[in-house]
Amino acid sequence: MTDKLTGSDRDDALAPLLANGWTVQDDRDAIHKEFVFKNFVQAFGWMTQAAIHAEKLNHHPEWSNVYKTVQVTLTTHDADGLSPLDAKLAKIMDDLARTA
Amino acid sequence: MTDKLTGSDRDDALAPLLANGWTVQDDRDAIHKEFVFKNFVQAFGWMTQAAIHAEKLNHHPEWSNVYKTVQVTLTTHDADGLSPLDAKLAKIMDDLARTA
Repeated sequence: MTDKLTGSDRDDALAPLLANGWTVQDDRDAIHKEFVFKNFVQAFGWMTQAAIHAEKLNHHPEWSNVYKTVQVTLTTHDADGLSPLDAKLAKIMDDLARTA
Repeated sequence: MTDKLTGSDRDDALAPLLANGWTVQDDRDAIHKEFVFKNFVQAFGWMTQAAIHAEKLNHHPEWSNVYKTVQVTLTTHDADGLSPLDAKLAKIMDDLARTA
């Protein structure tokens, strides 16, 4: 069981993500970001790196891919909303995209 | 440029796919299938195999993944509809899923 982010913990966790292109969804307590790469190999290569980290965290994204674009939504079903795991995976994804 | 499937070529190409769980979309000339695996590693492993084949064909899916489920839509933008490449990639995906 993962605790839902609330109060100042939530603000502190979200601030760097919102500054980095993530947005909070209107219709559910989840964050979303669109990643655009040079081509399919770059996009799917990044997904593969992120997938391995997701499995290590036992926390998996909802994501879709069309050629060089990947749409990612993160939320924690156990917590019925955003948890520290979402912030952690979002940061990993951003870090991986920077070096992709 | 890839030619759009028409007439009996289209029927012949689609028949085995429709018999295997693919459906033609209502709103566009595309085929869709949901693949469900045992877990995330199996699902993403299958995606990785399919991604390599897609890149070899230079024909890429629209797909989304949530944990053990992968939704796939295939169409050919150049042809403004279904082409032989979609039938080819769909069959490869089915074959890979059988051995996953």
